[in-house]
Amino acid sequence: MSELHLSRNTIHFAEPLPLQSGAILAGYDLVIETYGRLNPEKSNAVLICHALNASHHVAGPSPDDPEDIGWWDNMIGPGKPIDTDHFFVIGVNNLGSCFGSTGPMSLNSATGKPYGADFPVITVEDWVNTQARLADKLGIRKFAAVMGGSLGGMQAMAWSIQFPKRIEHCVVIASTPKLSAQNIAFNEVARNAILSDPDFHGGNYYAHNVIPKSGLKLARMVGHITYLSDDDMAEKFGRELQRPVGESNDYRFSFDVEFEVESYLRHQGEKFSKYFDANTYLLITRALDYFDPARRYEGSLQRALAEVQAKFLVVSFTTDWRFPPNRSREIVAALLSNKSEVSYAEIDAPHGHDAFLLDDPRYHHLIRAYFDQMHEARR
Amino acid sequence: MSELHLSRNTIHFAEPLPLQSGAILAGYDLVIETYGRLNPEKSNAVLICHALNASHHVAGPSPDDPEDIGWWDNMIGPGKPIDTDHFFVIGVNNLGSCFGSTGPMSLNSATGKPYGADFPVITVEDWVNTQARLADKLGIRKFAAVMGGSLGGMQAMAWSIQFPKRIEHCVVIASTPKLSAQNIAFNEVARNAILSDPDFHGGNYYAHNVIPKSGLKLARMVGHITYLSDDDMAEKFGRELQRPVGESNDYRFSFDVEFEVESYLRHQGEKFSKYFDANTYLLITRALDYFDPARRYEGSLQRALAEVQAKFLVVSFTTDWRFPPNRSREIVAALLSNKSEVSYAEIDAPHGHDAFLLDDPRYHHLIRAYFDQMHEARR
Repeated sequence: MSELHLSRNTIHFAEPLPLQSGAILAGYDLVIETYGRLNPEKSNAVLICHALNASHHVAGPSPDDPEDIGWWDNMIGPGKPIDTDHFFVIGVNNLGSCFGSTGPMSLNSATGKPYGADFPVITVEDWVNTQARLADKLGIRKFAAVMGGSLGGMQAMAWSIQFPKRIEHCVVIASTPKLSAQNIAFNEVARNAILSDPDFHGGNYYAHNVIPKSGLKLARMVGHITYLSDDDMAEKFGRELQRPVGESNDYRFSFDVEFEVESYLRHQGEKFSKYFDANTYLLITRALDYFDPARRYEGSLQRALAEVQAKFLVVSFTTDWRFPPNRSREIVAALLSNKSEVSYAEIDAPHGHDAFLLDDPRYHHLIRAYFDQMHEARR
Repeated sequence: MSELHLSRNTIHFAEPLPLQSGAILAGYDLVIETYGRLNPEKSNAVLICHALNASHHVAGPSPDDPEDIGWWDNMIGPGKPIDTDHFFVIGVNNLGSCFGSTGPMSLNSATGKPYGADFPVITVEDWVNTQARLADKLGIRKFAAVMGGSLGGMQAMAWSIQFPKRIEHCVVIASTPKLSAQNIAFNEVARNAILSDPDFHGGNYYAHNVIPKSGLKLARMVGHITYLSDDDMAEKFGRELQRPVGESNDYRFSFDVEFEVESYLRHQGEKFSKYFDANTYLLITRALDYFDPARRYEGSLQRALAEVQAKFLVVSFTTDWRFPPNRSREIVAALLSNKSEVSYAEIDAPHGHDAFLLDDPRYHHLIRAYFDQMHEARR
């Protein structure tokens, strides 16, 4: 089998970045990873946009920790659905995130201290602008595809709107044209958990040498519930009690961990609080809330997508109750009304929103066929 | 129109109460309200069981605050679906709650201090035992009906199992024979919010003159999301921004309240934290988690309900995603397998779990018809 040709780089952007909020970021770094090789025509590049807690590290073992496998490794690599023998795949850590790109933990050159609460609010549209500048640096005039799941799908969609000539295919998975009131409500609970943690210190906890750990744990716990389907949770945990082997299966009548699902959630929260930054959590959930391309067109998604030139692949999962199939169908309907080219698949999968990260065979066959066809058409 | 004949009483029970956990409660008070008049045969009594945050104050204006209208006032009163001209309705504040019955805030006579963390864990079955003792005190051998929504419905179900001869009709609304993993997960997030609040002090916050307010607010916010349907939230709030009249409708790019739904949730959390006790929240959510009558019958609900003599009315609401219709159908199926008498209605209502508290005409007609028929049959 051929190699992944993983390369990791930090790229500095010196030119100030005007943001949607009106703020201007003086300069910033983006960490990227690339897989495969850019062809001489620079026409085989695929940009992978990440969701809330992921990063530039999309595929293969991390250069600095071979145990740390990329978050979409089942999708991207030699011989995988997005075949790095054909495509040059780019993962980029979003501005404001906490895995090396400039974000709230970074030093603010104006003060010599971490940005903390002073880091500006970032939108999906802002991210796309930084990614376009990245493409400029890499000499990529037009992406073969921009692709993402969930929040990553929003970035792909925004690409097709902001830079219609620079994206050939737009792959939007388990996403939505805008959050519902319920989606925003869950984000608000998560943010409030962080904001009300006494260790948050108004976002400047770095100076206090603490992190708002309880808040971050709670945020992750509530988030995690929305990523799994009800059925999947029932299947995985049911009402099983968390018990060491040989111990009585009677109720313990306490508020400590009693059920497996409680143990699982606490563990997920704990793990997350050790690697994720609370300010980044606020920023990214807010970017989710604000995304609504139809907003400037009196709510018309069709008009928002009027200038689109990309061909779309839209994928949803039947048990995803965070961004259910009907949200994807709104995108498809708007594109069809514009006579844009769009393929749509609704995958019958049990794993809820998280399905976009898993290797369901029907889902992977579909992505493989789509990219194979793209590759064939270009030869 | 005739009068409600509201009467409120605190009843002391001196006899120690053995609990399902093995603990024994030395003695306790229950606050009750009654409406209508008990007939000479004492055969027209209806017990109303409350859910998480409600109380004995079911109908009419509160004796000490005329603005405070009972939580099921649209259902119970003269000429209402449960007509207090025919039925003698009893509301009881559950043991462990915080509206006058003995609970964590009460003085523990053994220590002279509030129980706090020492208050024993209570189960649905324990509540039913206290309610049976209450019936004994009132001279009620058999209830015409025991009725409740959500957790109240679990109590009604438990009545039919624990005291099959003492309940003629069992009315179970928007309920479930046991929580799902997802239900437990949401309770666990809410409990963790309270447990991790520094003002919780291991449950003994009364001594510190504080309450775990942030935790209680978060608990309520996450709970509240599960009470409303996705559509209902979309209808009520959509993506409306929270703006004073005349102010710009542009995004503010901050983590403060931005959307209406955020303002609503924060307000609900704030309100709740002012009247509800955090230890009671822990207790009642744990009672929900533990309820599972089929557990001692290797998971067979049919066997758990084998001794039932009551006639059942089971009601669910189409958009209730907390306890969806399929959970009610499990109860109905088990009863039918036992050849018990059961009526089932699935009400097409938009308001999610909260629908059981609202006055949807089809729902109220159904309850009215059921109780009218009950009344006619007894004349």
